[in-house]
Amino acid sequence: MPSSLAPLTDRVWTDQLERHVGEPVELKGWLHRLRRLAEVSFLILRDARGTAQVVIHDAALVERIAALQNESVLSVRGGVVAEPQAPGGVEIHEPEITVISEAQEAPPFDLYRPVIRAQLPTILDSAPVALRHPRRRAYFAMQAASMAGFRQTLRQLRFTEIQTPKIVGSATESGANVFALDYFGRPAYLAQSPQFYKQVMVGVFERVYEVGPVFRAEPHDTARHINEYVSLDAEMGFIENERTVMAVLTEVIRGMAAAIGEEAASALALLGITLPEVPGVIPDVHFLDAQAMITAATGEDLSHEPDLSPANERWLGEWARREHGSDFVFVRGFPMSKRPFYTARDPERPDFAAGFDLLFRGMELVTGGQRLHRYQDYVDEITRRGDDPANYADYLMAFRHGMPPHGGFAIGLERWIGQLVDAANIRETTLFPRDINRLSP
Amino acid sequence: MPSSLAPLTDRVWTDQLERHVGEPVELKGWLHRLRRLAEVSFLILRDARGTAQVVIHDAALVERIAALQNESVLSVRGGVVAEPQAPGGVEIHEPEITVISEAQEAPPFDLYRPVIRAQLPTILDSAPVALRHPRRRAYFAMQAASMAGFRQTLRQLRFTEIQTPKIVGSATESGANVFALDYFGRPAYLAQSPQFYKQVMVGVFERVYEVGPVFRAEPHDTARHINEYVSLDAEMGFIENERTVMAVLTEVIRGMAAAIGEEAASALALLGITLPEVPGVIPDVHFLDAQAMITAATGEDLSHEPDLSPANERWLGEWARREHGSDFVFVRGFPMSKRPFYTARDPERPDFAAGFDLLFRGMELVTGGQRLHRYQDYVDEITRRGDDPANYADYLMAFRHGMPPHGGFAIGLERWIGQLVDAANIRETTLFPRDINRLSP
Repeated sequence: MPSSLAPLTDRVWTDQLERHVGEPVELKGWLHRLRRLAEVSFLILRDARGTAQVVIHDAALVERIAALQNESVLSVRGGVVAEPQAPGGVEIHEPEITVISEAQEAPPFDLYRPVIRAQLPTILDSAPVALRHPRRRAYFAMQAASMAGFRQTLRQLRFTEIQTPKIVGSATESGANVFALDYFGRPAYLAQSPQFYKQVMVGVFERVYEVGPVFRAEPHDTARHINEYVSLDAEMGFIENERTVMAVLTEVIRGMAAAIGEEAASALALLGITLPEVPGVIPDVHFLDAQAMITAATGEDLSHEPDLSPANERWLGEWARREHGSDFVFVRGFPMSKRPFYTARDPERPDFAAGFDLLFRGMELVTGGQRLHRYQDYVDEITRRGDDPANYADYLMAFRHGMPPHGGFAIGLERWIGQLVDAANIRETTLFPRDINRLSP
Repeated sequence: MPSSLAPLTDRVWTDQLERHVGEPVELKGWLHRLRRLAEVSFLILRDARGTAQVVIHDAALVERIAALQNESVLSVRGGVVAEPQAPGGVEIHEPEITVISEAQEAPPFDLYRPVIRAQLPTILDSAPVALRHPRRRAYFAMQAASMAGFRQTLRQLRFTEIQTPKIVGSATESGANVFALDYFGRPAYLAQSPQFYKQVMVGVFERVYEVGPVFRAEPHDTARHINEYVSLDAEMGFIENERTVMAVLTEVIRGMAAAIGEEAASALALLGITLPEVPGVIPDVHFLDAQAMITAATGEDLSHEPDLSPANERWLGEWARREHGSDFVFVRGFPMSKRPFYTARDPERPDFAAGFDLLFRGMELVTGGQRLHRYQDYVDEITRRGDDPANYADYLMAFRHGMPPHGGFAIGLERWIGQLVDAANIRETTLFPRDINRLSP
């Protein structure tokens, strides 16, 4: 390795100090807090991995640090000393401190408190600073680990990564709720999902996945909707039926949870949460049976409902926990009337889809299923819905030229983390959320 | 593993047949070609990994297959026989063939020929089929491997993956050439790069990377521009200077090339190309020295040129190959006048940037460098350029609250593959290109 990599490779992080007891080190990071006591002061330095306690006896040095705003960037050279009473069991003694970059003013809220004492809109307005809070940062360390686990699991199953266009020429996938764009004077739209493209790519690589943004112009202002989010998409050919897709999804969820356990263990510890166990086979229930159970238990008449309400989903989540000891439950066989045209039908109950939702702790996390794969089935279904197959010519080209039985799923990354950490609002687990009122930062 | 995974895990691929000599297998894939000879016919079956030769003596079976359009999806059960004269050294004998999904019509061009015999616009119009051609597919197998190598190298250096928003509230990064959007009745824009967000996230994770789409509304129609492409972005804190960034980039390029060698070896073999060697230290030249060399060699007066022309880049590529045996060369120290406001200045020559371009085989592949990190420097530079720091308030919040010296780079994925395979047009190495005239498929 060339020596110019040294600033990265030689770095000592706060979470590695135990290995350096008795040695001099140089730490770099942010002035998280200065605690001034009568005899001694403690500087808490934060870097990307955690915090370290720096003991200062020198009154002049304390004054110099006290004159700095929190979040100033510092270099701290000192000796590592084992101290059972210090956080992490070590602290830095006899520090030499250099100011690398001075903060201009105090942060809008204290980042050193266990939680940020501010309302969510204030926190989101100040995201560039708020995201430095260890608890908020932990959410996004878990996101990064989840993406790695998603990809790793699918790579082991020989899926190929793709990146498909986000600017599309027609708004046909679901008609409403698309963002319109001026594309050199012509209308264009932002992709609501990579659905059409990932299916087309099954004809090329058979098994594909994509991690990328999706855009929904839904004018909802709820705690569980945002207008741009990260979708973890997979699509695979030569499946037997939707059970193949459910099995792959089960492995993917297991891989995502395992990756968090391995790569974001300190985030889990900080947040005090435990990962869900993913059963070898996740319990599943047919939509009609789910409705019947809910009606029997609650008296609610669901006989004309084509979908599950959030309350229904919560009930099923509790049922799965109680009856199967599982945080996860599949609901299969939603009515075709609420499913998109590319959905394959259950061959035994053609009014119901060969598809599923995966509920995680009582909330829909994933939608997936088998798709139509024969050209004529697409023509028939699109026509039956009163639309014109010519509007879908580019997409249908793949089916005119031979496609295998296939299916797939899409996981919402922010919702996955939101359920894991029990966030009250999905904006908490979104780096820079976009909603009907918010376009910045 | 649950048995419902079996359709994926038990699959035998065409590139695994050597292991199964003497055994019965079931292959699944597309009817790539039927070659009818007097005594025998050969069905070439294509799957995601390659092709297999199926020998048919049964005249009735040959007629059945001949009645199918190419690209029909088939299951082929038969015995694997070693046959030195067959492509790949094995072939399938005594096949039973089932039609899984019949193609409606012949492909718009023959996919079994060594190259597609059609003009680029026709190929792009038919991308859902054209991408199935083994040579075109090979480009995107190399893309997938490159993304994996990019991430793996940076993960080893403890970078954290981020996903930043693509809908942004202001068009301030470079003003011109942004796509405008109707965001619930308000103006919004598509992100030209994750630049501001990745810098802000250095304050959170210190080292971050992102793989995602970027959008440039440049009204150019050239062989090297597209309006949406995949950017491989990295940003890192606590660097010494731009040399740290150059060293990380060198490791990343090495990792990307190595990943192609490991994961897309068959694509390389099919295309008949060799990977570039990435030197331990890539040679570098200052912008002014590069100009002086070009002027000395060609007589071209470059004294008032603030940038390198494509012809200049090609000259430097040839120079690096000749003088240093390298396909790569860094050009450092471009004039500040052509660099964005967040660019750090070379402390020894303040009219020039502490930044670089990386040329690969005579074409700019990467731009990077050190950024400003002090709040006042941003205020001064934005003001000096006649703009108002208030327009950048969200972004500048990070710098008001302490940021370390940092820098980063952005690699264009399609251009990287385009140079590797010596594509005449970047659209060839883009899955579904978007340009001033093209919005579909």
